[in-house]
Amino acid sequence: MVKKLALLYEGKAKKVYTTDDANVLWVEYKDSATAFNGEKKATIAGKGRLNNEITSVLFSKLCEAGIPNHFIQKLSATEQLVKKVTIIPLEVVVRNVVAGSLAKRLGIPEGTRLEKPLIEFYYKNDDLGDPLLLEDHIAILKLATSEQIAVLKELALKVNDVLTKHFADCRVRLIDFKLEFGVDAEGAILLADEISPDTCRLWDMETNEKLDKDVFRRDLGSLTDAYETILQRLGGESACTK
Amino acid sequence: MVKKLALLYEGKAKKVYTTDDANVLWVEYKDSATAFNGEKKATIAGKGRLNNEITSVLFSKLCEAGIPNHFIQKLSATEQLVKKVTIIPLEVVVRNVVAGSLAKRLGIPEGTRLEKPLIEFYYKNDDLGDPLLLEDHIAILKLATSEQIAVLKELALKVNDVLTKHFADCRVRLIDFKLEFGVDAEGAILLADEISPDTCRLWDMETNEKLDKDVFRRDLGSLTDAYETILQRLGGESACTK
Repeated sequence: MVKKLALLYEGKAKKVYTTDDANVLWVEYKDSATAFNGEKKATIAGKGRLNNEITSVLFSKLCEAGIPNHFIQKLSATEQLVKKVTIIPLEVVVRNVVAGSLAKRLGIPEGTRLEKPLIEFYYKNDDLGDPLLLEDHIAILKLATSEQIAVLKELALKVNDVLTKHFADCRVRLIDFKLEFGVDAEGAILLADEISPDTCRLWDMETNEKLDKDVFRRDLGSLTDAYETILQRLGGESACTK
Repeated sequence: MVKKLALLYEGKAKKVYTTDDANVLWVEYKDSATAFNGEKKATIAGKGRLNNEITSVLFSKLCEAGIPNHFIQKLSATEQLVKKVTIIPLEVVVRNVVAGSLAKRLGIPEGTRLEKPLIEFYYKNDDLGDPLLLEDHIAILKLATSEQIAVLKELALKVNDVLTKHFADCRVRLIDFKLEFGVDAEGAILLADEISPDTCRLWDMETNEKLDKDVFRRDLGSLTDAYETILQRLGGESACTK
């Protein structure tokens, strides 16, 4: 068993620690909720546990489907071990249904189904407000090569296929989600970060009730009730066996 | 000679009239300057004449270079005849050097030379603030087909080649510019709208003095002095002979 060492990084939702294995990081999910680039903030007891559990379940599912990713194992209710990667500073957003910023940008009603999944890249840069990027912008900023972009798109669509089906089995519609990827010591691209109701839009299949961070963004009720519903519906194992 | 009939459309910088020829429109350039989606406004005597003259010179140059376009002839100091087209609601921006919104979006200093010309599409929609669009967004909005997008990109790069060389001959650096295109009765894509210091960033080749609408946007001096400098350096004919 690895040992937790120094705090490497503290983000809005997680703390990341080094371990005595240079290739392994120790992640602790926090009870904080933020939205609108940090303008709206709250501490919500239990949120760290819910996102750690849900992320562990979903990464285990993606492991089974053969998606290369950073997840090693869940350690406790709020902690997990992951492989160390260098994060590519891109938010890879996949959309199946128009919602959120896309509805505003294009002037299309939220809830409009897209004919095929849409992939968007946003620059992970709080100072710039995480702007939408063209692939040519990514090249200008040298954030990723065109070969890496092709891999990101292919993996993002595979993740979408796996998660859309899995959520549908749980009577949840996967509206959109944000992925982050990293590069490991060998140069391989691995899915990283978290996949949770913080990073996905999830609507009840029958009622369209929102079961994601929009509950917090838009003051629609109890965030933990919504996230608990997702965790209960997902059920299952959270240890990656591959 | 065609006859001017009814006012068809009044925009921020131009009035467009129908004529007794259904395929011909009569354009009158106004003395108004606007910036920041209409938030900053002024009336500047002589601006209409300058933009009409400069647009006529530049479209004549593009005619000679074989770029399909809407320009027919200059009628007077502030008026010109153009072919009637249905405008594709996209602003096609070509950039050679980082400036303006690109500098802000990417956090790159204004004046940084790009390794190759960058093409961006913006949605011509004041209510939405003319947002940047991915080609997939254009498809979702059904603003243009992928074949049309390919033509727009090809024409935009040709226009960039012709104008970059022509401006360089006039000791002016073409930093970036915005084009609009339309579709004529036969379905052909024609370059339309205007090409002027309102729609281009133009810097003096030696001093980098701004000779374009940034003079107005950023309160850098006399707009008409800057535009007059451009017109004088361009000189030449303004009647399309093709």
